[in-house]
Amino acid sequence: MIPCPISEQTEVYEVVPEANRRVIDSLDYFIVENTRSARRFLSRAGVARPISELEFVELNEHTTSAADIERMIRPLEEGRSAGVISEAGLPGVADPGAQAVEAAHRRGIRVVPLVGPSSIMMALMASGQNGQSFAFNGYLPVKEPERSRAVRAFEKRALSERQSQIFIEAPYRNVKLLESMLGVLSPSTKLTVACDITSPSESIATMRVEQWRKSPMPDIQKRPTIFILGI
Amino acid sequence: MIPCPISEQTEVYEVVPEANRRVIDSLDYFIVENTRSARRFLSRAGVARPISELEFVELNEHTTSAADIERMIRPLEEGRSAGVISEAGLPGVADPGAQAVEAAHRRGIRVVPLVGPSSIMMALMASGQNGQSFAFNGYLPVKEPERSRAVRAFEKRALSERQSQIFIEAPYRNVKLLESMLGVLSPSTKLTVACDITSPSESIATMRVEQWRKSPMPDIQKRPTIFILGI
Repeated sequence: MIPCPISEQTEVYEVVPEANRRVIDSLDYFIVENTRSARRFLSRAGVARPISELEFVELNEHTTSAADIERMIRPLEEGRSAGVISEAGLPGVADPGAQAVEAAHRRGIRVVPLVGPSSIMMALMASGQNGQSFAFNGYLPVKEPERSRAVRAFEKRALSERQSQIFIEAPYRNVKLLESMLGVLSPSTKLTVACDITSPSESIATMRVEQWRKSPMPDIQKRPTIFILGI
Repeated sequence: MIPCPISEQTEVYEVVPEANRRVIDSLDYFIVENTRSARRFLSRAGVARPISELEFVELNEHTTSAADIERMIRPLEEGRSAGVISEAGLPGVADPGAQAVEAAHRRGIRVVPLVGPSSIMMALMASGQNGQSFAFNGYLPVKEPERSRAVRAFEKRALSERQSQIFIEAPYRNVKLLESMLGVLSPSTKLTVACDITSPSESIATMRVEQWRKSPMPDIQKRPTIFILGI
């Protein structure tokens, strides 16, 4: 499981241990979310082998069938190793990859996670919100009234269980999500908005909803952002 | 926010980007879970400055008062920077640190997360369990019947919300927790046991409870372990 940078503006080894290169260099077979971005990552990572000699298969959780997964795991049964790479950050966390790992476990094939940037963990670590209990919920519903209902339900859980509630949104909908959250959340709820993590424009702020309402809207449109609710 | 290794047997820069050293080298003030282990980490990380010239204050969430937090944040209001270091892994995630970050946000002081090993994320990434929705729940109750009741409640949530449920336990109670989970969970529930992550003895296995029941108990006693329930 090979993490890659989460920002195009970051050098690979600013956010990934040099030691990962040894693992990558030992591989010639990759299960990837997107071949083009995986090639670009490997080239930026300075792998020893010519990239044209590497084999890539694509795993996208919406289009890959169970039979495809079987086919991509078969070489591992014969002793070959595979690297799993998603488009950004940790494969298998808020990103494709888990299906291949699941198939590997079913065959008793060893799975090794490497260290790399997780925008979810970095946002949480820098939020000051409760890191002893937290949930990542992925995307909220896009439509109303489902979205407001979901925001309120997660706020309730954040309060009743003291569990930080983490979300993401398609970046072009970030401002709309923030506006709708500020519309329905209780004034005393704490909200973290963590934007462009690891990039030079990174900004991470935690305030109560009442303070967010009085502040200028942060410039988060089309920029990858993590939202965290807490008490 | 300065991550450190999660295993004593790992070199710092096997699990932490070299770039973190530049940040550490720029600091002379550290808010730490434990001064002795922070000094050892900084020495292993090969910091430029003599460690005797660095200043340390301890932040432990059970013993540090609000007034202590104010005192340790005061230098930051005057323009000094601080590094936050926990005993293992990411500060502020399943570890102290969040209170200092919260106080910093209240004053508009910038908080910057660095990359490092998170046993929670590495276990999840290598588990094959759902990484699109997951919750970290910390420690389960130690006593029965509260513990079994909590295990069943989290299993129910794993099923009804398709949300992976992650736990830890004091390492000397790992076997007891695993036995009690195997006693109460449904045969078809998937359980990941991820032990000694990033160390040479790392082992990560995901099986259904019925398979765990037929398998020899894994050797997890007194070894740091992450447990994940899913469907």
